[in-house]
Amino acid sequence: MPVTLKVMRKTLRLLAITLAICACDRVKAPVYERVASGVWKVEVGTPDKVNLLNVLQTSPKFAAINALEEVPLPVDKDKITMEVFDGKTYLRFPLDRGERLYGLGLNFKSVAQRGSIKRLHVDHYGGSDNGRTHAPVPFFVSSKGYGVLINSARYIDVYAGTSVRKDSENPPEIKNRNADKDWSARPYSDNLEFLVPAKGAELVFFSGKTMLDVVKRFNLYNGGGPLPPKWGLGFWQRVPALFSEEDVYNEVGGFRERNFPLSVIGLEPGWMTCSYPCSYQWDTGRFPDPDGFVGRLADEGIKVNLWMNPGVAPGCDVAREVRPYTGTHTEWNGLLPDYSLPEVREIMGRCFRNNAIDKGVSGFKMDENDGYDSWFAPDVARYPSGISGEQMRQLYGSLMQRFMTELYREKNLRTYGLVRAGNAGTTSFPFVIYNDYYNHRDFITALVNCSFIGVLWTPEVRASKTSEEWLRRMQTVCFSPLAMLNAWADGTKPWSFPDVEERVKEVMTLRMRLIPYLYTAFARYALEGEPPVRAMALEPGFEGEAPNDQFMVGESLLVAPLFAGETERKVILPAGRWYDFYTGELAGTGEVITVAPGLDRIPVFVRDGGIIPMFDPMTNVPAGPCPVTACVYGKRAAACDLYDDDGLTYDYEKGAFTWIRLTADPASASGQAIVPEGGTVWSFSGYEFKFMTK
Amino acid sequence: MPVTLKVMRKTLRLLAITLAICACDRVKAPVYERVASGVWKVEVGTPDKVNLLNVLQTSPKFAAINALEEVPLPVDKDKITMEVFDGKTYLRFPLDRGERLYGLGLNFKSVAQRGSIKRLHVDHYGGSDNGRTHAPVPFFVSSKGYGVLINSARYIDVYAGTSVRKDSENPPEIKNRNADKDWSARPYSDNLEFLVPAKGAELVFFSGKTMLDVVKRFNLYNGGGPLPPKWGLGFWQRVPALFSEEDVYNEVGGFRERNFPLSVIGLEPGWMTCSYPCSYQWDTGRFPDPDGFVGRLADEGIKVNLWMNPGVAPGCDVAREVRPYTGTHTEWNGLLPDYSLPEVREIMGRCFRNNAIDKGVSGFKMDENDGYDSWFAPDVARYPSGISGEQMRQLYGSLMQRFMTELYREKNLRTYGLVRAGNAGTTSFPFVIYNDYYNHRDFITALVNCSFIGVLWTPEVRASKTSEEWLRRMQTVCFSPLAMLNAWADGTKPWSFPDVEERVKEVMTLRMRLIPYLYTAFARYALEGEPPVRAMALEPGFEGEAPNDQFMVGESLLVAPLFAGETERKVILPAGRWYDFYTGELAGTGEVITVAPGLDRIPVFVRDGGIIPMFDPMTNVPAGPCPVTACVYGKRAAACDLYDDDGLTYDYEKGAFTWIRLTADPASASGQAIVPEGGTVWSFSGYEFKFMTK
Repeated sequence: MPVTLKVMRKTLRLLAITLAICACDRVKAPVYERVASGVWKVEVGTPDKVNLLNVLQTSPKFAAINALEEVPLPVDKDKITMEVFDGKTYLRFPLDRGERLYGLGLNFKSVAQRGSIKRLHVDHYGGSDNGRTHAPVPFFVSSKGYGVLINSARYIDVYAGTSVRKDSENPPEIKNRNADKDWSARPYSDNLEFLVPAKGAELVFFSGKTMLDVVKRFNLYNGGGPLPPKWGLGFWQRVPALFSEEDVYNEVGGFRERNFPLSVIGLEPGWMTCSYPCSYQWDTGRFPDPDGFVGRLADEGIKVNLWMNPGVAPGCDVAREVRPYTGTHTEWNGLLPDYSLPEVREIMGRCFRNNAIDKGVSGFKMDENDGYDSWFAPDVARYPSGISGEQMRQLYGSLMQRFMTELYREKNLRTYGLVRAGNAGTTSFPFVIYNDYYNHRDFITALVNCSFIGVLWTPEVRASKTSEEWLRRMQTVCFSPLAMLNAWADGTKPWSFPDVEERVKEVMTLRMRLIPYLYTAFARYALEGEPPVRAMALEPGFEGEAPNDQFMVGESLLVAPLFAGETERKVILPAGRWYDFYTGELAGTGEVITVAPGLDRIPVFVRDGGIIPMFDPMTNVPAGPCPVTACVYGKRAAACDLYDDDGLTYDYEKGAFTWIRLTADPASASGQAIVPEGGTVWSFSGYEFKFMTK
Repeated sequence: MPVTLKVMRKTLRLLAITLAICACDRVKAPVYERVASGVWKVEVGTPDKVNLLNVLQTSPKFAAINALEEVPLPVDKDKITMEVFDGKTYLRFPLDRGERLYGLGLNFKSVAQRGSIKRLHVDHYGGSDNGRTHAPVPFFVSSKGYGVLINSARYIDVYAGTSVRKDSENPPEIKNRNADKDWSARPYSDNLEFLVPAKGAELVFFSGKTMLDVVKRFNLYNGGGPLPPKWGLGFWQRVPALFSEEDVYNEVGGFRERNFPLSVIGLEPGWMTCSYPCSYQWDTGRFPDPDGFVGRLADEGIKVNLWMNPGVAPGCDVAREVRPYTGTHTEWNGLLPDYSLPEVREIMGRCFRNNAIDKGVSGFKMDENDGYDSWFAPDVARYPSGISGEQMRQLYGSLMQRFMTELYREKNLRTYGLVRAGNAGTTSFPFVIYNDYYNHRDFITALVNCSFIGVLWTPEVRASKTSEEWLRRMQTVCFSPLAMLNAWADGTKPWSFPDVEERVKEVMTLRMRLIPYLYTAFARYALEGEPPVRAMALEPGFEGEAPNDQFMVGESLLVAPLFAGETERKVILPAGRWYDFYTGELAGTGEVITVAPGLDRIPVFVRDGGIIPMFDPMTNVPAGPCPVTACVYGKRAAACDLYDDDGLTYDYEKGAFTWIRLTADPASASGQAIVPEGGTVWSFSGYEFKFMTK
């Protein structure tokens, strides 16, 4: 073969190879469809019919989104790659030096996500932030001021600043491991890459003046946060699995006698005749008169919450009817209803109404819908709606949340409950995620992380090795979305550690006193998308990488918990003056301080000009109006808005709510509560101002 | 709506739903194409173009397969499900009560696989048998006497007897966790299920009179085992990463002075000018005369093996030429050649020939081709041949094995080396898998498991906390496919623990003495598919679940290692009489015995009538013929076949080998070596018989 022919052949082959690596299914140039201020939708390839959001039928809060300041997308669209190849959707977002990434699921060990590799997969948390978690929300928020939701119910692979492309514009320095001491096994990467195992995906882009605005847009796009019924913010006690009616009365009596707050009693599997798998029918041995039982507790102002998990016992009343609408595989012998089907929602709805909701049961703890490969329907399962095992694993908890929310909504009643799985799109459902993992420090990291991804998390308390640990855990759970002692396994009481009994009671009582403040924080979540518990990275005036052990609660409180074994800790105070919550003294000004508060108290700080509206100490969430004390921090004029509504129904969605404006002037020691003209006040009988800073 | 209409509508909807759950891409009724005795191929759906086997271009050994007794498939084909759904291939095999499953990748903690859940994924072993391992071979063998290879280069999900189908024919008993103490979170399952994330897959079924015959068929289908050059069975020492020529000479001198066996010196990254990423060029500072260096060691009968990993340093000689044929992503800044392309094999072949093979280098240690999500080209990578990131991760090690084997084969030279990744199809390549995991007990479990999946494994020794551990590790590695001390990190020598120096030397010398026996075992692997190191479950006369801590070597040796901290152990002896290897005394007869051998020796047993041909003690693998001592165990007439060939080339594939028949009669204390007429003998200068059992 003559040389020129050889060269030509080689050139052609090279061309073919170069084309091969670029070959991908025909993907149209991405169209950024503006759906609201700072929100754009992009379709890549041919997305699945079912996605994380469309099975839930929630609606974005467009008006609230549009009320946020509009800013353009702060990333060069030409540098974003979206391709379909090998039946999968490939996404690449460029990363700048110093750019920070947050979100990517309910992580327990890390807040900053740049440098992580994950496969987002609903699962029980197994001890590493590898993507297997109770809410592997495929949403990231970047410190550049944007975020992207990958709205796909698939196991999405994420390489968050770890992989290095041959064609990188910002390649890492090449080092020789033989000679360079600072050779690194993890060279610098300028890529955030995703692989969605489907031929397409819908992406939703969110921009914002700040990361907080990005998160608010994301939350509002998902329908805004839930507004729990006011009783939901009181103290919850779950009783041992096989407790009877009598046992529960005794438990409640214990709280009453000791003057400990109690709003909700949670029953565990033993309320049913069979579980697991679940009959969803009362065991009349342990509970001879369920209506009477629920009613008697209601008379004491205590709600009943019931445990359940997805598997329907084949022998129970509802099984025959629901069987055709269940998946191919079982969970602990239980049939798994396909909650995406209206038939299932009707059949199971009837079951839950008859057995529970119509009896006055306030809500549910929906266990084990996160699955676990060895018990939950495996990926090989299929469901009658046509949803695959993989998709259902990503959606099961979300679908149950939708189902249960709708059952209560039918009655114009809000519920508040617990769930083991969520995902993007569940933001508006009134369910708080929990698990069995029980590492206190990691529970707080999860509390920080839930604020990036539109879910709620409770660091529930179960048992402790020492009274110190017990107290530290009780302190943190009282500053979380759901303050609960879960004694299903061992019957622990808040007073089980006598040497810290009074301190535990104090922080539980503080929780009750803070209800006006907490309820307002939740109203902001519902109406404006602002998470009630937030990572420091979302706080204006906060610089640097977000810590995993301090967080904001509501507008003005900074909480910095201690963990067993610690006597002091560092607290990062954002810009401005910050005051000690308990004393009103100046704690610091945009600096890192060290606090050594002793066992008594969990360190809490209030921003300058913050007003914390509080009830008087009480053990029950009040049914009628009560006086409020507005605690004012700092020396300058202060103001806050206090939310109020009926605390129980969805009437607030039709405008039946009131924002009460509290203003205070420490200089003149005067304050004012302004109720807008014609505004109804449900919860407050008077306003007192207390100037905390001398 | 009249009632009948309502009923009709409901019936129609139910029908639609029932159909939906059954809906899958049109899959033809499976055709079992008989390709050899006891081997059938089945195509499900539309398999990927690239699979585990076809990129390797090896050929089944049909004649040897057909020489095995033909038995039908012992499983009801109607109960095997093969469907394509949601773009994935679903496979179900029925499981009987008591049926055992083995294989499913190179597992380190478990031998029995029923009850396990995995995603088969080439990776560094991370401490749990979840499918991420160096050789996640998608092949299982069942105690029913069949096995199936899923010939797909995808991450395959496996539920091996864990999932429960609603329509199960052998459903688990339903228990109520509230009431039944023996409620189990893992109910009985009669399914072995797979999900292949591709629209089709090729399956290969193997039947056999025994599990061993199934495994033999599988190995022969993959080309049969490799026959290492005889020097490969001697002792290997890898030296510290930055050793120079002089350092190596001193190291070799140390072995010589102390009279320790040494066959191969392995150089680590420092032989190159740059690594990682790799230049593949000699560092002339440390090695001023590579040819002279290799030659000088050759003069002492010592081979040189070179470390390398896949990433090509962008600045090195070969980089510019190979760059267009590399993947989109880099590994530690190294370009990743697509070894499936002939261009790459040509360019890189030239590089390795020039720099190493033509200089007399005997082989390579191919590191880090198993990948690790944080360093190896991630799943988002693509390769110029069109192979996706997922497929390449499953294939990279296999392709490198093919490449390197072919380079030596061109010269009619056998190589023997190390590799960090393999998969189905690599059986015939002369590479032994190793890793950094370094748990001694788990290393032995891997040694047991490699016999089910057609790969080789070495429990290489690096360092130890105590001399006891050192000795125990050296004892086991000397009974493995590759006896190596890898001192790359810390420069350990065999004599580094003086109090066990003589015992270490003794077992290393025993390794050398066993070469005729070991070489014969490998010949059986190559020609008949019988693994040289085997799980007890593959042994005739062995009942029950296979232990993870004892194994067979060759035809007649049972090895039962001890681990640091143990002074005694139980040994399961299969049916028949078994004799102590060292003393010839009867050890037991099909029973469980307890042995307490002290530190000196690793317990080894010989089956009744076994003959173990051994060399005299020596430190080098002999180049010419040597006398052999045939040790005879038991009191009955004994026989074995001893394999011989030139020990270096592929001429044996053309028939240039000889089976020497050894027979012995303890009663008359006589023995005979029968060389077939016209047979060449390369390695043996005489045969002595030693009757071990008095």
